[in-house]
Amino acid sequence: MPLDRATQIAALKNVATRLRIDSIRSTSEAGSGHPTSCCSAADVVAALFFAEMRFDPKDPRHPGSDRFVLSKGHAAPLLYAAWAEAGAFDREELLKLRRIDSDLEGHPTPRLSFVDVATGSLGQGICAAVGIALNARRIESDYRTYCLLGDGESAEGSVWEAADVASLDKLDNLCGITDVNGLGQSRATMWGHDLEAFANRWRAFGWHAITIDGHDISAILDACAEARATRGKPTMIVARTIKGKGVSFVEGKDGWHGRAFKKGEELDRALAELERQFVPVPAGLNQQQLIAKPASKPPAEPAPKPVAPPSYKAGDSVATREAYGTAIAKLGEADARIVALDADVKNSTFSERFEKVFPDRFYENFIAEQIMIGSAMGLAARGAIPFPSTFACFLTRAADFIRMAAISNVGIKVAGSHAGVSIGEDGPSQMALEDLAMFRAEPNFTVLYPCDAVSTERLVALMAYHPGPAYMRTSRPKAEILYSADEVFTIGGLKVLRESAGDVTTIVTAGVTVFEALKAHKELRAAGTAVRVIDLYSLQPIDAKSLIAAGRATGGHIITVEDHYAAGGIGDAVAEAVSDAGIRVHRLAVREIPRSGKPEELLDRYGISAKHIVEAVRAVSAQRPVGVK
Amino acid sequence: MPLDRATQIAALKNVATRLRIDSIRSTSEAGSGHPTSCCSAADVVAALFFAEMRFDPKDPRHPGSDRFVLSKGHAAPLLYAAWAEAGAFDREELLKLRRIDSDLEGHPTPRLSFVDVATGSLGQGICAAVGIALNARRIESDYRTYCLLGDGESAEGSVWEAADVASLDKLDNLCGITDVNGLGQSRATMWGHDLEAFANRWRAFGWHAITIDGHDISAILDACAEARATRGKPTMIVARTIKGKGVSFVEGKDGWHGRAFKKGEELDRALAELERQFVPVPAGLNQQQLIAKPASKPPAEPAPKPVAPPSYKAGDSVATREAYGTAIAKLGEADARIVALDADVKNSTFSERFEKVFPDRFYENFIAEQIMIGSAMGLAARGAIPFPSTFACFLTRAADFIRMAAISNVGIKVAGSHAGVSIGEDGPSQMALEDLAMFRAEPNFTVLYPCDAVSTERLVALMAYHPGPAYMRTSRPKAEILYSADEVFTIGGLKVLRESAGDVTTIVTAGVTVFEALKAHKELRAAGTAVRVIDLYSLQPIDAKSLIAAGRATGGHIITVEDHYAAGGIGDAVAEAVSDAGIRVHRLAVREIPRSGKPEELLDRYGISAKHIVEAVRAVSAQRPVGVK
Repeated sequence: MPLDRATQIAALKNVATRLRIDSIRSTSEAGSGHPTSCCSAADVVAALFFAEMRFDPKDPRHPGSDRFVLSKGHAAPLLYAAWAEAGAFDREELLKLRRIDSDLEGHPTPRLSFVDVATGSLGQGICAAVGIALNARRIESDYRTYCLLGDGESAEGSVWEAADVASLDKLDNLCGITDVNGLGQSRATMWGHDLEAFANRWRAFGWHAITIDGHDISAILDACAEARATRGKPTMIVARTIKGKGVSFVEGKDGWHGRAFKKGEELDRALAELERQFVPVPAGLNQQQLIAKPASKPPAEPAPKPVAPPSYKAGDSVATREAYGTAIAKLGEADARIVALDADVKNSTFSERFEKVFPDRFYENFIAEQIMIGSAMGLAARGAIPFPSTFACFLTRAADFIRMAAISNVGIKVAGSHAGVSIGEDGPSQMALEDLAMFRAEPNFTVLYPCDAVSTERLVALMAYHPGPAYMRTSRPKAEILYSADEVFTIGGLKVLRESAGDVTTIVTAGVTVFEALKAHKELRAAGTAVRVIDLYSLQPIDAKSLIAAGRATGGHIITVEDHYAAGGIGDAVAEAVSDAGIRVHRLAVREIPRSGKPEELLDRYGISAKHIVEAVRAVSAQRPVGVK
Repeated sequence: MPLDRATQIAALKNVATRLRIDSIRSTSEAGSGHPTSCCSAADVVAALFFAEMRFDPKDPRHPGSDRFVLSKGHAAPLLYAAWAEAGAFDREELLKLRRIDSDLEGHPTPRLSFVDVATGSLGQGICAAVGIALNARRIESDYRTYCLLGDGESAEGSVWEAADVASLDKLDNLCGITDVNGLGQSRATMWGHDLEAFANRWRAFGWHAITIDGHDISAILDACAEARATRGKPTMIVARTIKGKGVSFVEGKDGWHGRAFKKGEELDRALAELERQFVPVPAGLNQQQLIAKPASKPPAEPAPKPVAPPSYKAGDSVATREAYGTAIAKLGEADARIVALDADVKNSTFSERFEKVFPDRFYENFIAEQIMIGSAMGLAARGAIPFPSTFACFLTRAADFIRMAAISNVGIKVAGSHAGVSIGEDGPSQMALEDLAMFRAEPNFTVLYPCDAVSTERLVALMAYHPGPAYMRTSRPKAEILYSADEVFTIGGLKVLRESAGDVTTIVTAGVTVFEALKAHKELRAAGTAVRVIDLYSLQPIDAKSLIAAGRATGGHIITVEDHYAAGGIGDAVAEAVSDAGIRVHRLAVREIPRSGKPEELLDRYGISAKHIVEAVRAVSAQRPVGVK
């Protein structure tokens, strides 16, 4: 039964008051948190949840539900209060906020069924919201995506990357709301309450922008309706609000960011003020019943079809980056959930091969890596299997997004090409030499580094269906085919490429330097020295057992070789894997800032060519203590 | 002798033609590079270098010189050609482009005296330019800063972070030029030749914007003059250009990005076309003599004064983040080159202590970490000693800037607070657990991690004057004072806090977990087990010799403890340092995505509390082989 407008507004005002009370109570109970940042946005959230959005509080992951992303993640208590108010869980749970035994954490994470992506690093939620909105188009659902931003976070460049992509993609199913309370953490924001400063920026970036009083429920509802009616562009509602709204002694006051009300007089006074703000509504009005339900669930996505094995032949010469492009295109044929994202290097990463076949599932982000990864996070959270790719070095641009993807444990499948000094003449700015360190640091990221086209194609398929986030490192140079098409690879596996009973040491490497190790093996064999060679295509997880066995069988020494800086890469991964076994690990890695030159010159100059491997083997076998096994 | 306008324009046209010829010749000789990206900007660069900018080609680092930052670093051959044309070096050097024996690398680095910061990762040069412009104000110089951007790179969010900060700081000594050639690497840019799309964005961000034909020398000169006359805001000149301008068969054509002309017919045809574009100028006109010289050098900065020793006393309890704030304020008193930069967390990092004393040397960047680090790079390149700081986790937002700072080898002194799970209730999004991995990966970054206020203050002073980039990790919890005020610290040092002849193992740690190790030491000693405890406050460089000695003296085992993920931190640093000595390293580190909770609960849950250290010592001493020394 629809309410008349006056009753609806009165009811929503009361919801907002309850959300304020709950946000304040829960943060005071926790002894920390951001109640004043909740209070400024309470009217907006009340209107969104209880008049605008269509969702099922008992089934937050319903694929047809409207989505809400709290980009200003520090207002988590407000989000939790809204879901409790909607009936998703018991309101008393709110008082466990920030406790180690509760999923109601300081900032939202997908441990909670109603959270798609973790927020709390500002400027990221809006990027994920773009991906969530793109996903609606992908699955042909009419769900809408709402994203609440802080005014302070609008200083993050990632917000404007999202703005560009959303307008370019004409995402009229996306509606942002900026909570302009004028105060950042440590001082007034750059723009204070100058709503036009915000609106002009959004308009310049191609959005429809509406300025309103963010405490006027009627204005909020009208703006949402206007956004819904706007075609061909996303809408940003710029809402003037007061930080701490509802509690007179903190309203608009600096120094109250991230500060809970002290239990006792301070808290009591705040709550008493809020209690007086309830307005009369008809008896028996049940707010939860007013939530619009989502449309019926979209049809389940078709099961993936089998993929043909790699078609490479011995003697072919194919860069792993190129094999990557071929692999995602093949996989895309088999599974409609596979999508690809680019940052204007598709002709270098070969993701253009996917675009050619599936232009509708290919998302161009131009030269903007944060929105590429952020959007992939949103897509993955809603059921797609996204493969964002660019030069591996430029993935560092999105390191904070990668960190948050790990916290979200969301299945983005990142690929970085042009790794290492082997790219050659373009010089250090284009060489990824810290990407393995970046991805390995995140404990739940799978990290893969194939050396040939066959293993690339097999590992692309494996990473697509392995749960959680994953990274594949690819290389620029052409590489010969090492493996036959029916070779079996596993996440967490490795391949022993050369072995004999008399091996004096083990060389562990991956990617381009596998071929340097094979050259060294050949040269050493000619000189009567046998070494074991391992292709460590899976760095994380890592096959510690096989590494230890190899190290033990070859004199207790392992030499690692990598086209990567010394810290955080193959050497460190192997050293940790074998540390308890007392095996010594000798690292060949890039140890200074490199320069431009030919690939082979650089491999040699920075100590990771076959020549250096031969020298290292000789040095290690000379120092090998007799009888260590 | 000033030229008449017509002669000047004719002369500049010829300069532009020579720059095109040199860019094309050098890239063809190298066999790679971006000649068409040079051609689009040749007229702009000719006008800037030979009519607008004041500099001394024989003294590129002159402190009073106007500065030029090539944000679109892939146009490096054009930059090199301009400096050769100006007489900085012999034109024939250009043909060594991209060779391993030449500093004329694929993208510019400060190995060249006329380059302030390395570029080639797009969207960064404009951030550095903001810092360079701020520095002019700091040293009261009237030098102007010019920055050439690509149109494609304007998709990078960092560009808009720079835009905000520059307009907020009213940097009317900064002039950007966007080379709108309409083509990115793999396709047309987001906006093509829509100059107003660019101009409107810049205006919305508070800049003065001028749209021109970027091949009309007269229009370029007029726009530069207008920029010079504009007060209170920076200017962006939005220049419509043609990619490959001057060579008819590539002009405006897709597919020519990053492609050199093939030697032979293709190159010859291009050069022949360009040769025909020279126009008559008076005989004997020497373009180099037309370059305006910089004003006299600003006075040398005063030598730093001595700094009083730390004033902490035993029994004080001070968080290292707080000690950091005090330390930079003290240092600022002694040295006018010290500046601080913030991203709206100055009340948490305590950099507000610096702001209170030196508001003019404190640069607020609001919630925008990329411009904070980028601006610091520019300041450092021009003689300041900048201390940018924020929560350590949010430094990942600027990981690509940190990577480029390493390539630039520029002396930024980065501080990250709130490291690790010890921050407690705010949860994983606010916990830095990969910052050590990020900074250690860069081979020339100094990485420090003090545990108490005294060491923090000493290390802040050391990092300020240690050459190159540096990082300090600080913590949220209050910590007791461990060291006396006259304790001596060194970059690359460590402190043995507890030792005895009968130590069964060595615990190596830093920061908050030093206190856990000391608790464990006490508990073990009470139970009759002696262990060595080392405060590894300098992770990079690292004192391998002392670590090996300690490991050898304590049974061949080291236990590392860190409030950081397992990869890339203290464990890996120690393991590499001792790897050749055959010492086994056992790591206690955070191995899963953490959650919210009390600091002490989290240290315990994630295995890095005193209890876990005691257990590890017992396990290690049980397995210790007899007689290993």
